[in-house]
Amino acid sequence: MAKFELLKELVSPNDSKIVLLVMDGLGGLPREVNGPTELEHAYTPHLDRLAEEGNLGLSQPAGTGVTPGSGPGHLGLFGYDPLEYVIGRGVLESVGIGFELGPKDVAARGNFCTVDENNVIIDRRAGRIPTSKCVELVEKLRPITLPGVEVFVEPVQDYRFCLVLRGEGLDGHIADTDPQKKAPPLSAVAHTPAAEHTADLFNQWIAKAREILKHESPANALTLRGFASYPNMPRFPEAFGLKSACVAVYPMYKGVARLVGMDVISFEGGKPEDEFKAVADNWDKYDFFFVHIKYTDSRGEDGDFEAKAKVIEGVDAALPQLMALKPDVLLVTGDHSTPWALKSHSWHPVPTLLWAPGTTRRDECRVFGETEALRGALGRFPATDLMMFALAHSKRLGKFGA
Amino acid sequence: MAKFELLKELVSPNDSKIVLLVMDGLGGLPREVNGPTELEHAYTPHLDRLAEEGNLGLSQPAGTGVTPGSGPGHLGLFGYDPLEYVIGRGVLESVGIGFELGPKDVAARGNFCTVDENNVIIDRRAGRIPTSKCVELVEKLRPITLPGVEVFVEPVQDYRFCLVLRGEGLDGHIADTDPQKKAPPLSAVAHTPAAEHTADLFNQWIAKAREILKHESPANALTLRGFASYPNMPRFPEAFGLKSACVAVYPMYKGVARLVGMDVISFEGGKPEDEFKAVADNWDKYDFFFVHIKYTDSRGEDGDFEAKAKVIEGVDAALPQLMALKPDVLLVTGDHSTPWALKSHSWHPVPTLLWAPGTTRRDECRVFGETEALRGALGRFPATDLMMFALAHSKRLGKFGA
Repeated sequence: MAKFELLKELVSPNDSKIVLLVMDGLGGLPREVNGPTELEHAYTPHLDRLAEEGNLGLSQPAGTGVTPGSGPGHLGLFGYDPLEYVIGRGVLESVGIGFELGPKDVAARGNFCTVDENNVIIDRRAGRIPTSKCVELVEKLRPITLPGVEVFVEPVQDYRFCLVLRGEGLDGHIADTDPQKKAPPLSAVAHTPAAEHTADLFNQWIAKAREILKHESPANALTLRGFASYPNMPRFPEAFGLKSACVAVYPMYKGVARLVGMDVISFEGGKPEDEFKAVADNWDKYDFFFVHIKYTDSRGEDGDFEAKAKVIEGVDAALPQLMALKPDVLLVTGDHSTPWALKSHSWHPVPTLLWAPGTTRRDECRVFGETEALRGALGRFPATDLMMFALAHSKRLGKFGA
Repeated sequence: MAKFELLKELVSPNDSKIVLLVMDGLGGLPREVNGPTELEHAYTPHLDRLAEEGNLGLSQPAGTGVTPGSGPGHLGLFGYDPLEYVIGRGVLESVGIGFELGPKDVAARGNFCTVDENNVIIDRRAGRIPTSKCVELVEKLRPITLPGVEVFVEPVQDYRFCLVLRGEGLDGHIADTDPQKKAPPLSAVAHTPAAEHTADLFNQWIAKAREILKHESPANALTLRGFASYPNMPRFPEAFGLKSACVAVYPMYKGVARLVGMDVISFEGGKPEDEFKAVADNWDKYDFFFVHIKYTDSRGEDGDFEAKAKVIEGVDAALPQLMALKPDVLLVTGDHSTPWALKSHSWHPVPTLLWAPGTTRRDECRVFGETEALRGALGRFPATDLMMFALAHSKRLGKFGA
């Protein structure tokens, strides 16, 4: 039986509260052979107490050896196999800038580019025009209308924008218009007959946009890539039976949360204590809180061991504020590892803490860290199992079979 | 998304070097309750140092409780699920004797047998004729020709030979001609219409062979079994993006390596130091070296605990020669266990060592052995994950999704 089918049978809501605290890129690497990682180096008395009381384990985001991007990484945490639910680039780009994508939408990533007098692309990035120029050009393109659909154009950054068509029966199976060589931009060509009407609409839009841009310099043309429909996936609140909210600072994470159907909470500030306050302020309204801490990943990408450890210490210091709410289940993990040594996302499994008073057994873990997690009661598990832990330990799953 | 599809998207070659050192049948069993295994008993200072610096784990060759043969065991190490990529017996027999099987080939195993005056098989093994007799009979069969295909007959051992037809459009879906009871040999019968032409050709060959053998004694007839086409599987060098070479002494292992597309290196001698020298001599030509040590398995099959430990000590002693080449990733494992106590292959998971400086976390393993591997950072993993470790730790895999 497939997982979401099974859940349909088993999920049985109650009034427990679950918090999923994601420190982005949490997993790390040591500075010297057999030394501590960023997390192990950080002073984290509160997390260590929770580790001692609860259980540890290691989450595999997308299978052995596979390094996930932020989109697949979070989908995994939310219980969706990222290799099964592949989200198109256009969709990710639009949710990443906070665009509220809906089920009737097809989204594409756009690049402003420069063509010569023969319409051959001579600069795929239009001289990397500044974002302010991008905003100005997008304003000029906004008035374009198409028959029977709504059109949204949004600036992203530098030469990048995104384009969304909204209407009945649209289909994103369309090839990129970027020829990836010195040649004229391609037309939007449907991969399947069902997408031909949508491709036509994109081509009409392209023709009107070219008319508007032709006297601009250097951004006198454009290409569209990563066409993608709104992903067809079970919605999180219904699938898991949880009134669910996202507390995050960056648009990308709010976007992915919104995509699966969570509410996104607005709040002031960007520190862990601000995020935990937002949780407290909304405690009675929701069953499930996804709280996203960005800067662990950022400092990992910087290659800064100490700074990443400091971010973790900041979260730990604010933690009593969250624990004062008395959640029934707290999960602390990351969407992937971002070891300082690699300055990038990595494939390494992510240390994970489950704290759920009254429903966990003893394990030998006394502090929160990668090495300790190797002998934790949760073992090594696919990230998609995390929500199963959350539901089970909050007693929200009925018995399977008599 | 299936693994090889995913790899197509993610593999990104660089100039790192990977060595997969396979000690055949490495895993063992203790002599007394809670005693050390062959590997744990052996004095292996170099492997122990690598274990301390790197990570250990346990490789499951073909699923819990399943004992693999050499073919499936090695396919698993090379990243192919042996339960999905089933290689026909005929193919395995022919590559096992070093026959260079190609994509247009259908191979079968042959048995010389004895029939009575009514053509009823009275000895399925023709009195276990010696190999010299087998060679003599095969020489007599070699002149047989068939229309439109090439024919190869090769002696194997005792009463066993192999037969390969090479040509366009051949298909190995053909039933065994051994009736498995006191009855005349069967004709080759196609399982599918597409294999009918091939079955006809085999029947023509059988008729001509019977004519040649009819006055021989005791080997006056034959049966054919395990008909199989060249397996349709992604080729290793392309699938993993690795210029790949095999350093092995026995034909079977060279055969399986050649089957998946590796180059096979010729060299003098058969000791670990000879094999490591062959690696050194070819270091600049390849990205990936599969090095096969046979005698761990042989001494396990002998039931000789001490002798198997000595083979492991010999490999350990030669190891500095390999490490002097400074591989980026070294994997040490076996294709299965061959515990002295069972005198045969077994299902026990295989101790595995990953050494990849700069990309491994601390674990608590200090020596290379089965018990220590239980708490290793690699955990217990399917053998097919081994190449994912190899690619990830050599930084040859891009990010999945944005």
